[in-house]
Amino acid sequence: MSQDALVFYSRVDNAQAWQAALAAELPDLDVRIDPAVGDPADIRYALAWAPPAGFFARFPNLELVINLGAGVDALMKRDDLVPVRFARLNDPGMEAMMASYVVFAVTRYARDIHIFERAKRRGEWEYVHPRPLFEIKVGVLGLGELGAAAAKALANMGFSVTGWSRSPKDIPGVTARTGREGLERLLGESEIVVCLVPLTPQTHHLLGERELALMPPGAKLVNVSRGALVDEAALVEALRSGQLAEATLDVFETEPLPEGHPLWALDNVLITPHVASITVPALAARDVAESIRRVRRGLAPLHEVDPRRGY
Amino acid sequence: MSQDALVFYSRVDNAQAWQAALAAELPDLDVRIDPAVGDPADIRYALAWAPPAGFFARFPNLELVINLGAGVDALMKRDDLVPVRFARLNDPGMEAMMASYVVFAVTRYARDIHIFERAKRRGEWEYVHPRPLFEIKVGVLGLGELGAAAAKALANMGFSVTGWSRSPKDIPGVTARTGREGLERLLGESEIVVCLVPLTPQTHHLLGERELALMPPGAKLVNVSRGALVDEAALVEALRSGQLAEATLDVFETEPLPEGHPLWALDNVLITPHVASITVPALAARDVAESIRRVRRGLAPLHEVDPRRGY
Ligand SMILES: NC(=O)c1ccc[n+]([C@@H]2O[C@H](COP(=O)([O-])OP(=O)(O)OC[C@H]3O[C@@H](n4cnc5c(N)ncnc54)[C@H](OP(=O)(O)O)[C@@H]3O)[C@@H](O)[C@H]2O)c1
Ligand SMILES: NC(=O)c1ccc[n+]([C@@H]2O[C@H](COP(=O)([O-])OP(=O)(O)OC[C@H]3O[C@@H](n4cnc5c(N)ncnc54)[C@H](OP(=O)(O)O)[C@@H]3O)[C@@H](O)[C@H]2O)c1
Repeated sequence: MSQDALVFYSRVDNAQAWQAALAAELPDLDVRIDPAVGDPADIRYALAWAPPAGFFARFPNLELVINLGAGVDALMKRDDLVPVRFARLNDPGMEAMMASYVVFAVTRYARDIHIFERAKRRGEWEYVHPRPLFEIKVGVLGLGELGAAAAKALANMGFSVTGWSRSPKDIPGVTARTGREGLERLLGESEIVVCLVPLTPQTHHLLGERELALMPPGAKLVNVSRGALVDEAALVEALRSGQLAEATLDVFETEPLPEGHPLWALDNVLITPHVASITVPALAARDVAESIRRVRRGLAPLHEVDPRRGY
Repeated sequence: MSQDALVFYSRVDNAQAWQAALAAELPDLDVRIDPAVGDPADIRYALAWAPPAGFFARFPNLELVINLGAGVDALMKRDDLVPVRFARLNDPGMEAMMASYVVFAVTRYARDIHIFERAKRRGEWEYVHPRPLFEIKVGVLGLGELGAAAAKALANMGFSVTGWSRSPKDIPGVTARTGREGLERLLGESEIVVCLVPLTPQTHHLLGERELALMPPGAKLVNVSRGALVDEAALVEALRSGQLAEATLDVFETEPLPEGHPLWALDNVLITPHVASITVPALAARDVAESIRRVRRGLAPLHEVDPRRGY
């Protein structure tokens, strides 16, 4: 029996696809799919999404927990964490997918498609003169692995892009801002705001009534990160008053978005069921394997998470 | 009075913006806005969109007609043309705008947004598992100035792209096909087809009942070139039967699309009012000026049109 095994846990991901992808990248890795874990003392790595309470404490020799996704907010707020290294997934496929969703949502507004969709339902030819893309100001909150990819894709398309992050960034074609002042400036000057910051105690309800009011009247919001980054009651109010003209929402404070939630009834909201980006095991397994190789050599894993920062 | 003047004619474009943009690029050019043309013998260049019958014959010294747009089908089928050089507009802004529309329309289908739009109207959370972009096959008919820009943008986003043109093309990331056989292969293997060939006698009703039936059942069509490239009756039928699952149409056999036209009533059609791409005078004036400089030196203009080919 190996004493260098990985335990896989997820109720939503395809365990067989992951096992095959990991075998291709790291043939000597012993992958065990919960509950068939064998001797818990063999487990040194966990690749997991939302395991039950007490899961991590079962493995006395655990060294590394890789979150089976990019958002670690649910993992970080657990009260049963053990003192090991944490990492999250990231892969080029996930970045491309997130970029495609964000480009879609921003372009839909930039090209006035929401107006044409309504005209179509009325059976009317309503002409709106197109605006060149460089005239359209897009703000991206969060310039991490996914946010930076989205901001770059928007800049490549020809939009005027400003980004916001904790530490200053230098991304070609993207004006970078930081701090509370940077956030308020970005909100004040962006016609379309894309939310891609992780959910942490610091970013909970980052966009509330006050922040939404800073945006130009008739602005548009795209939230593809986590629902709780936006105060949903304030969002509904801003969408009703017209302060926000439109919103594209992939994430919600409660998911699935409950039946009868006021957002369902708003004609100026596009709702998608948390699909902006997913991991493709065949692509992401490369980084998981590399993280394990690095931890075996005593190095930090790729895409490490800092529990003190919360992301 | 100069004997090297340009006449401008359009009922839809902004003459003052063009005059300013041309003055910035070619200060010595005498630009006259119809009907204030002065001595017709001074006119050597025309920058025109849909001028009245007999317009060109009024100018005995005309050398160059620049079509105030990319599509020259309406110009080429006139019976009052004079034997001069013809050119059409093209500019990086027009390419970026067309690429943004095509990327939007293709991504909307690739990311299942049309399904989520309907679920939203029913107030239902309907989950569809995302597919990686490289699994989605997109065919682009026409690889000219706009078609090539759109095909490249789609390939950069991560789609699997095949293109079709008269002469063979070599565009990185784009599988190139030509001829009738190439067309049929492209149709048979593309989940999403984008139409960007110019309208000529050869391409009229390029996509009819037979061609639409070659596409995989449930395919999607994006037409951003000219309505008459597609047999509209066959299109409506294919959209009703489900052979075509969806269509995004920016152009129509008759524009504006007449009230009560069957396309208005189809829930699986997105209609936009011929806005996929427009010319920004400040950007396009550079090429117009360069064409005039070239013709002054006895050279061919940029973006020359071949009346025998029809584009
Ligand atoms: N909808 C979906 O399908 C889906 C799929 C995957 C992920 N997601 C969400 O997307 C989020 C972003 O992913 P990612 O991979 O880009 O995350 P990441 O790599 O951790 O980047 C986070 C970014 O946000 C910035 N940030 C964090 N806290 C901040 C604060 N208090 N103030 C200002 N900036 C702050 C970070 O700044 P620094 O660069 O200075 O650290 C960084 O730029 C995930 O957390 C997840 O919630 C959604
Ligand atoms: N909806 C809008 O807002 C909008 C705006 C601007 C333009 N348009 C339309 O877009 C069209 C395309 O513009 P463009 O600038 O890309 O045109 P272009 O530069 O003239 O390119 C035309 C392309 O179509 C190919 N083609 C022409 N006839 C063909 C045939 N019989 N068989 C196979 N391929 C053929 C050409 O092949 P070769 O490369 O071998 O010559 C070329 O690749 C315009 O004609 C116009 O109708 C629409």
